[in-house]
Amino acid sequence: TTFTASFVVQAQEHPNLILTKDGVEKIRDNLGKVPLFDATVSRVKQTVDKEIAAGIDTPIPKDFSGGYTHYRHKQNFIIAQKAGVLYQILEDDKYAIYVRDMLLQYEAMYKNLPLHPQERSYARGKLFWQSLNDSNWLVYMSQAYDTVYNFLTEEQREKLENNLFRPFADFISLENPAFYNRVHNHSTWGNAAVGMIGLVMDDEALIQRALYGIEDDGLPIGGIDNDGGTIKVEGQKKGFYANLDDPFSPDGYYTEGPYYQRYAMYPFLIFALAMENVRPDLKVLQHKDNVLLKGVNALLNLSDADGEFFPLNDGQKGMSYYTASLVTAVDIAYHYGDQNPQLLSIAEKQNEVLLDEAGLDVAIAIRDGKAKLFTKSSINLTDGIDGKQGGVAVLRYGNEDLTLVFKYAAQGLSHGHYDKLSYSLYEKGDEVIQDYGLSRFVNIGQKGGGNYLKENKTWAKTTIAHNTLAQDGEMHFGGNYKTASTEHSDLYFYDDTKDNVQVVSATEVNAYPGTKMHRTMALIKDDNFEKAFMLDIMKVKSDEEHEYDFPFYYMGQVINGNFKWESPTDLEPLGDKNGYQHLYLEGKGKPATNNTKFSWLGNGKFYTLTSVAEESDELLLTRIGANDPEFNLRRDAGFMVRREAEDTTFVSVVETHGSYSPVSEASLNSNSNIANLEIVEDNNDYTAVSITDVKGSKQLFIIANKDASVSAKHSLTIDNKKVSWVGPYYYK
Amino acid sequence: TTFTASFVVQAQEHPNLILTKDGVEKIRDNLGKVPLFDATVSRVKQTVDKEIAAGIDTPIPKDFSGGYTHYRHKQNFIIAQKAGVLYQILEDDKYAIYVRDMLLQYEAMYKNLPLHPQERSYARGKLFWQSLNDSNWLVYMSQAYDTVYNFLTEEQREKLENNLFRPFADFISLENPAFYNRVHNHSTWGNAAVGMIGLVMDDEALIQRALYGIEDDGLPIGGIDNDGGTIKVEGQKKGFYANLDDPFSPDGYYTEGPYYQRYAMYPFLIFALAMENVRPDLKVLQHKDNVLLKGVNALLNLSDADGEFFPLNDGQKGMSYYTASLVTAVDIAYHYGDQNPQLLSIAEKQNEVLLDEAGLDVAIAIRDGKAKLFTKSSINLTDGIDGKQGGVAVLRYGNEDLTLVFKYAAQGLSHGHYDKLSYSLYEKGDEVIQDYGLSRFVNIGQKGGGNYLKENKTWAKTTIAHNTLAQDGEMHFGGNYKTASTEHSDLYFYDDTKDNVQVVSATEVNAYPGTKMHRTMALIKDDNFEKAFMLDIMKVKSDEEHEYDFPFYYMGQVINGNFKWESPTDLEPLGDKNGYQHLYLEGKGKPATNNTKFSWLGNGKFYTLTSVAEESDELLLTRIGANDPEFNLRRDAGFMVRREAEDTTFVSVVETHGSYSPVSEASLNSNSNIANLEIVEDNNDYTAVSITDVKGSKQLFIIANKDASVSAKHSLTIDNKKVSWVGPYYYK
Ligand SMILES: [Ca+2]
Ligand SMILES: [Ca+2]
Ligand SMILES: [Ca+2]
Ligand SMILES: [Mg+2]
Ligand SMILES: [Mg+2]
Ligand SMILES: [Mg+2]
Ligand SMILES: [Mg+2]
Repeated sequence: TTFTASFVVQAQEHPNLILTKDGVEKIRDNLGKVPLFDATVSRVKQTVDKEIAAGIDTPIPKDFSGGYTHYRHKQNFIIAQKAGVLYQILEDDKYAIYVRDMLLQYEAMYKNLPLHPQERSYARGKLFWQSLNDSNWLVYMSQAYDTVYNFLTEEQREKLENNLFRPFADFISLENPAFYNRVHNHSTWGNAAVGMIGLVMDDEALIQRALYGIEDDGLPIGGIDNDGGTIKVEGQKKGFYANLDDPFSPDGYYTEGPYYQRYAMYPFLIFALAMENVRPDLKVLQHKDNVLLKGVNALLNLSDADGEFFPLNDGQKGMSYYTASLVTAVDIAYHYGDQNPQLLSIAEKQNEVLLDEAGLDVAIAIRDGKAKLFTKSSINLTDGIDGKQGGVAVLRYGNEDLTLVFKYAAQGLSHGHYDKLSYSLYEKGDEVIQDYGLSRFVNIGQKGGGNYLKENKTWAKTTIAHNTLAQDGEMHFGGNYKTASTEHSDLYFYDDTKDNVQVVSATEVNAYPGTKMHRTMALIKDDNFEKAFMLDIMKVKSDEEHEYDFPFYYMGQVINGNFKWESPTDLEPLGDKNGYQHLYLEGKGKPATNNTKFSWLGNGKFYTLTSVAEESDELLLTRIGANDPEFNLRRDAGFMVRREAEDTTFVSVVETHGSYSPVSEASLNSNSNIANLEIVEDNNDYTAVSITDVKGSKQLFIIANKDASVSAKHSLTIDNKKVSWVGPYYYK
Repeated sequence: TTFTASFVVQAQEHPNLILTKDGVEKIRDNLGKVPLFDATVSRVKQTVDKEIAAGIDTPIPKDFSGGYTHYRHKQNFIIAQKAGVLYQILEDDKYAIYVRDMLLQYEAMYKNLPLHPQERSYARGKLFWQSLNDSNWLVYMSQAYDTVYNFLTEEQREKLENNLFRPFADFISLENPAFYNRVHNHSTWGNAAVGMIGLVMDDEALIQRALYGIEDDGLPIGGIDNDGGTIKVEGQKKGFYANLDDPFSPDGYYTEGPYYQRYAMYPFLIFALAMENVRPDLKVLQHKDNVLLKGVNALLNLSDADGEFFPLNDGQKGMSYYTASLVTAVDIAYHYGDQNPQLLSIAEKQNEVLLDEAGLDVAIAIRDGKAKLFTKSSINLTDGIDGKQGGVAVLRYGNEDLTLVFKYAAQGLSHGHYDKLSYSLYEKGDEVIQDYGLSRFVNIGQKGGGNYLKENKTWAKTTIAHNTLAQDGEMHFGGNYKTASTEHSDLYFYDDTKDNVQVVSATEVNAYPGTKMHRTMALIKDDNFEKAFMLDIMKVKSDEEHEYDFPFYYMGQVINGNFKWESPTDLEPLGDKNGYQHLYLEGKGKPATNNTKFSWLGNGKFYTLTSVAEESDELLLTRIGANDPEFNLRRDAGFMVRREAEDTTFVSVVETHGSYSPVSEASLNSNSNIANLEIVEDNNDYTAVSITDVKGSKQLFIIANKDASVSAKHSLTIDNKKVSWVGPYYYK
């Protein structure tokens, strides 16, 4: 009979999406023998049991991400997925019953559910205010469904598939092509959701729609989503493959930046893994030379010593590799990659594994003492589909004692910032010079529904909010997203081969037409210096005179400066647009000598900026927070050099030195070690900088401005002494 | 011969100051058997060996506390004391030689040393800019001398005593009576220094001078030190006993506050211990019913969950029981007190013990598993020599889950703040509502030589800098130190007998003549609330109309308020004196309803202030930092209710609720649980407050304003319902 046939096929096939029959058997055999796995099971069990005891609630959708209905529906899919896994592992029917009842409750509700009442999204969902969150739901619920598939009657399955899953998949795709058919992290979730439920239901049409998108979406070119991103461009790519191809560079850098990579990593990996299990012939997990596994490595390397991701583009500070999607990423990368034992030490810190074969594998390896410390080195990651759209370089001295994050990438889609050639600097896990990150309180309803705040556009994305050059008070590319999206900076060279001097250099010619920026940044450790320092050479050439602003968003409290500044009694905004309207001017001065020095204390460490001064420089002390009546911005400080010039070169050193403890009250090495910083040569061919320390020793750094070839021979006479070298830079 | 006689007497007597011959034998017997003691020896040895290798340097004095000569001389006495101890314990002559050579170098220098060149101090030292630091030197060097006494030749001893120690003791006492003859932490150091070297040299005149001061100091009444403290008052007490009697209350509260208690604790205890060893007949350690040991307990209880001392009066934030003087305090309190096993858990956290019998005792007890967790409960500490000058109450809910620090004390000498009836609030180790602390970067030379900054007087000490009532923009006592010093607040009652409601109530009638403040503060835990909350009833009665300012220095970023506020584009100072000149006005509004609500997010927790509003209230959002060109102040926020009234009652609740994690991005319980806060009765006899939560349940709190007796019977009709109770307050 049909019933029997169907039963046999299904008995063979489920679970097969993330958990597999073999995997489940292996897990059951190992229960009680693998500490980290057992601990995770027990914690998950505790969580799920508590939810089961509290009862199922599927409220009528109403709220933004900060509100109860949002929270509840999100919690539901998270718990249902876990309950399904527990059902497989522990073979206790109560978990299957919980999932079944919840799904049936959703089925009863979904049939007649209108669009979500909140209207802010360009692609409203039904359970949530945006289709994105509806897609999250389906990615998790597909897994839950797979785990209880055989527990359900055929009648129940048909009901769910016909009234809930298929309409749900059609809604987020066919009815929301503006959401579904893009190259964007949103679409990745949509594609994965449709694909995963397609795999469970064995629905080839859905699987194809997941991989290749909707062929004819009928959308006009253009359109803007509520984050300001373009919905459809000429020759729009679409579907999961496009989302895998386009935003990932061959190095695994995700063009939106680590915060969104972390978010997108889950659907990428979980769908790729489902494809690996159900349709290994399509080799999705291995696509583009294993770019997904490379992406995990790139992402882990884009974190500070605390494991917190660098807040490039729209990134919420504090997000780290302790987040759930990174548990997925680390475990999958270990199991399906090359069993890198360094990944195990991160899994140990996460103190949690996936409840599947990959997680079991990781937990067994940890139990067997295979973990090695994850050590981060300097790394240069290309951006762009072919790795030809600039990139991000991370220079690290020592064991993350000093870390420079230098961004010379492409725009990074709609979450990108106008921050060409900007950087941030870290000492271990502490920010020394910060990248502001985003302006949003994710999921905090009281702050604009937990969504992006308008200050994200008016401040966080602006050029002056970043540690880079702003010209004439304008944003890079005039703040035009369309223009910005077609351009990128270019690497001049990257060299991390020497421990005591590591250099990255890049150029940007499009951000301000007619102006070329060439920025060279180095981490240098000299024996006469207690710690490594950062050298920054920003060479600007323009065809006309401009006002250049060159800010340093230092973290900490002012210790002193070597110049006098006037502090106004009343604070006024520094400008009226492009981010300047959010900066108060707290002080203004002129250089006192040929070097401008400015020191601060942050996190119990001393820092000093030494910058080569021009007599006409204006030195500005700023504070974020003007025109911010809702207090959406942090009241953080900044220091800025303002210079009128045509061609000019900003040369700066940021030293980290000494320490202060409020417990011992000992103030150690609280002064700069630099007596003089000087540009000893600066022309079209070479820029040479000499650093004299307080003991009188000199260091000389020269960059060849025209030829970055490693084999090019150069010689230059400095102070009547001929210096000869091979390659793009000289340092001694 | 004289030589033999002298040798015999001395062999009997040294070391006998802190280390004793018996103690040293016991220590030697236990070497290698007591992990924490051995670890401390090994760490100290490493430190001292490194200094010995670097060589002795006794530079010509020149710098303030941030500079090298200050650092070096301070390091010298610290290392010499340690080296002396190592000599006794390890019996290695190199340590004695190091101490001997250093002392002889000082002897050679001291003879002709002029006053220190820095002229800021009212009592300049010779090695340091103030006699205070010279006294520090002598307290440590006396110990060093005692430990190598028998190693030195008689000739060397005579040279040191005649040319260095006795002139040094005379200089800081006889030649600096303004420093030596006060009741002040400075004088305590001076007295101890003179007494300790007197004990080592067996010089009765010095011992008497230490205990009883200089009989006739010839100083006029009055005089002001460089911190603004009065040097001599009518009937001035003096000497170590006076310093022990006067500033300590019978409960062991030190009137200057915990930061200075921590500083003074070392000379108090180390001299008392020396007296216990050499002159036990005088019972200095047991003086005033063991007030020194009670002081250790009081001090430990005046810390947050991180062990950081509450910054009452001039207190530097971050100073904690991890500081060296607290190692001394904890070990001595354990050994000479009642062997409280809870002290051992703090010693474990300190991870260090004294290298004497007390430290050995502690380390042995820890080794033997005797340590118990130090748990802090609510505590009420009286202030004043007889415990009759107000006090400080600390209410704690749970395991320091919520801690209220309420100050109704005396002025606290020259480091006191004009902060009658002020409070701070902590959740575990995090500040919810802060006390600003001091304005000083101790030992950071670039910031005003590491000394008190002028903003300490113009901001940190002012009334408006504190969470209490400011009237007509004036400071308590008009900021007059002399007047303030003669007054104190009075306890109305204190009751910590119930876990779910703990109350402290106090009055202040002198701060603003003609105005009576009666503040009642409670920590309450109700079943309908996730966490405990703070209830604050400030009842103000005056004989004329005033402008009252009532600030809340919340820590965190604004989430929202239930009222509209205007934010000026330009920020202006709120006033021109009494601290107001340092506050920018960032926003101004009027109450929208009968309750003013204001929420913020700090340290991943949500907080909401609910305050009973009057229609005419002005609600001000402030920011510290105006008129602060050197950036000596932190840019922290404040919220303030401004009200014109004669008699009025400010009733407020601060709830702590929920949490936010940037890793999970989960925003939990982010809203206030209070639907209505209402004053349901307020007259001369009773003030009654009702709190209605969002579920509609009501709590009623009544305070009897005239009779705090625990046996008084009260009844009151509220909402046509008669409420009867016994004692000063009612809560249900
Ligand atoms: Ca960090
Ligand atoms: Ca030019
Ligand atoms: Ca703390
Ligand atoms: Mg940015
Ligand atoms: Mg290119
Ligand atoms: Mg204070
Ligand atoms: Mg009294």
